[in-house]
Amino acid sequence: MAENQISIALLGYGTVGSSVYQLLETKAQEISQATGASFAIKKILVRDVNLPRSGAPQEIFTENIEDILDDEAITLVVELIGGLEPAFDHVTSLLEKGKAVVTANKQLLSQQGAYLFRLAEEKGTRLKFEASVAGAIPVIKVLRESMVAAGLTGIFGIVNGTTNYILTEMSRTGARYEDALARAQEWGYAEADPTEDINGKDAAAKMAILASIAFHTPVTLSDVDCSGIETITALDIAYARELGFTVKLLGVARLYDDQINVRVYPALVADGHPVASVSGAYNAVFLTGSSIHEIMLSGPGAGGIETASAVVSDIVSIVTHPQTALSENPIPYRNLDLFPDEEVVSTFYLRLEVQDEPGVLAAVSQVFGQNGVSVESVIQKGRGAHAELVMIFHPVEEKRFMAALAELGQLPVVKGTPRPLRVEGKDHER
Amino acid sequence: MAENQISIALLGYGTVGSSVYQLLETKAQEISQATGASFAIKKILVRDVNLPRSGAPQEIFTENIEDILDDEAITLVVELIGGLEPAFDHVTSLLEKGKAVVTANKQLLSQQGAYLFRLAEEKGTRLKFEASVAGAIPVIKVLRESMVAAGLTGIFGIVNGTTNYILTEMSRTGARYEDALARAQEWGYAEADPTEDINGKDAAAKMAILASIAFHTPVTLSDVDCSGIETITALDIAYARELGFTVKLLGVARLYDDQINVRVYPALVADGHPVASVSGAYNAVFLTGSSIHEIMLSGPGAGGIETASAVVSDIVSIVTHPQTALSENPIPYRNLDLFPDEEVVSTFYLRLEVQDEPGVLAAVSQVFGQNGVSVESVIQKGRGAHAELVMIFHPVEEKRFMAALAELGQLPVVKGTPRPLRVEGKDHER
Repeated sequence: MAENQISIALLGYGTVGSSVYQLLETKAQEISQATGASFAIKKILVRDVNLPRSGAPQEIFTENIEDILDDEAITLVVELIGGLEPAFDHVTSLLEKGKAVVTANKQLLSQQGAYLFRLAEEKGTRLKFEASVAGAIPVIKVLRESMVAAGLTGIFGIVNGTTNYILTEMSRTGARYEDALARAQEWGYAEADPTEDINGKDAAAKMAILASIAFHTPVTLSDVDCSGIETITALDIAYARELGFTVKLLGVARLYDDQINVRVYPALVADGHPVASVSGAYNAVFLTGSSIHEIMLSGPGAGGIETASAVVSDIVSIVTHPQTALSENPIPYRNLDLFPDEEVVSTFYLRLEVQDEPGVLAAVSQVFGQNGVSVESVIQKGRGAHAELVMIFHPVEEKRFMAALAELGQLPVVKGTPRPLRVEGKDHER
Repeated sequence: MAENQISIALLGYGTVGSSVYQLLETKAQEISQATGASFAIKKILVRDVNLPRSGAPQEIFTENIEDILDDEAITLVVELIGGLEPAFDHVTSLLEKGKAVVTANKQLLSQQGAYLFRLAEEKGTRLKFEASVAGAIPVIKVLRESMVAAGLTGIFGIVNGTTNYILTEMSRTGARYEDALARAQEWGYAEADPTEDINGKDAAAKMAILASIAFHTPVTLSDVDCSGIETITALDIAYARELGFTVKLLGVARLYDDQINVRVYPALVADGHPVASVSGAYNAVFLTGSSIHEIMLSGPGAGGIETASAVVSDIVSIVTHPQTALSENPIPYRNLDLFPDEEVVSTFYLRLEVQDEPGVLAAVSQVFGQNGVSVESVIQKGRGAHAELVMIFHPVEEKRFMAALAELGQLPVVKGTPRPLRVEGKDHER
């Protein structure tokens, strides 16, 4: 095999950056034996070169992106800054110079992916991004390269480890949301500011990336409706368990003929479904398609070393698969419309606080019946002066269900704001 | 994108072959849009061209391999005959002519893989085999291309759907082995002659392939010790459940510095481990490594359409990634010795029938103690005149445990032949 020497630059040297550096050092021999190539990190962009750092030698750090842009020996750059700016500027300039870019930046890709892939293509280079979703789990490669004839129709993603950890804790211990969040922060599974995890935005960015690759159409963050786990109560989780479900924050992408629907929401997942057993800070991506039936990839979410492992896979892939006549960049070849949320047929779970008096169930049932919403099961629980109805419905167009819900809010016997959750995976069979 | 026309031949036209034909027809547009290439099946080798067949037109069938070998327009051949001969002869001849080969043949690869990969390399062509293990689950691609820096140390594989179905049925219903097997045959999850599934040979061939790719060393079928599920009783499964385990037929490949150990055996898998929740006719491959922590890929085993989907992925991969300076063939770059089974440190489960009299537990414990085998837990169950000891041990070198077992067989209070099972995944944490 020809020995191929590749000079690399890193943008950013945080947890992932230093892990990439370390991985390329410690695994140099294995990588070289497997690929015939060797890699040297020649420059690292940081904001302040004077901060003390371990790992890389002081002299390769720089504060100036031009040092990397103008170095013709550097043909491959790993962007680990995160966020839109200055990452977008830097990646644009790098691609314009014809340098290959590997990035872990979900914000960048979910907002500017299609533009950047076209730019890379125009300039005869590559933009790779395995590390942007689900850490070391090679879901991008699998979607890009192994699912061409899969006839993909759907994706379930547990793509945010923080929320899965919190929901697992709540389910395991009966803890309240606030306490489970505090525990997640204590154990390092949640940031000091976990807003983007909790409200589903982080998952939405990742689902935009997955959906665009799976369905070959541009999907951006703004196409993905999301709701988070802030309003999930210990009671919901307990009822879900009783009914044979586990609550998960799910990313759901579905193909409807020539339209797609991509959303993130907390859902009751049937316990027989593989996604229900993905616990703790784990991630999973569950694919369905006519030729594959279903495939699930799972593993820990994005720790430093796992993300670095994905980055190195991309580096290796760029070097071992040079750009060919056929595009290596995932440029969408079609432009699918969004399938409207209100036309999606969903199964709902609803916990309803009502006055504990005769005729309440009849009144509630009538509202649903009049809107064409059919109840599959209902459990009535006495809770002091109030009662609680825990209901599961037959699949129904979401607009019908939402109409019923609005009417329900008008009933004097109904207390508080009813918060439905969707149910997924009920019809799963092995 | 350049439109690239590829002429293909199939060897064999059974369930998988006809699914490949159908998939290339029905997904032609998607494949062409995604890859810029289009595929035409030009010839199909069968034993008797006169048998009625659906799908492909009569005139493309042939009984003569020379028709394919000598057709220079055919650059890619899919081997779906299975077994060693004549598949080995045909594949050798095809590679010698420089034609790329895609195969689903686990016997061929687990016995002649290293030779055939070298031959492909010499002739400047490719041999691909995603479909040989775990149907549509792209485990070969992931191992080959995404795990270069993973620091892989271990593989657990549930790579035989038949046995996983049988064990799941036994666990779910309490059925005896014979009844669960009959049910598997009735539902089409087991062949009329399921010998190779049941005795672990099928799984052993697949584990040889996985281990050789993961650890970059030749591993052949004869390197893989295997035991099957014939002797698993409903009682073992019930005790396992009681203790928090699920019985699985596991392929286990482990790297010990510069040695490897690859085996197939039924094991008690701790219920918290992801592999324990892989039920029914499903397959899963669970990878551990220093940089990935762990990753699991799971999905249905090898149905016709799933296997065909993997075949088409390989076809696409060959066309979109032409042979480069760096090898596309998984040629082992080292030659690791086998780590001796008796030095492996394992955790054992043992169900022991003993006479129900005072001092029996002491006698049994003494035998283990004298051999340096330490008991972690023991449950004593009265069963009529006899008692049963259900024991779990602390991890121990297998030779010590086997020595204790041999001595145990000499004790007059011990009835029958004690059959230990290994325990896996106990220390798994999420």
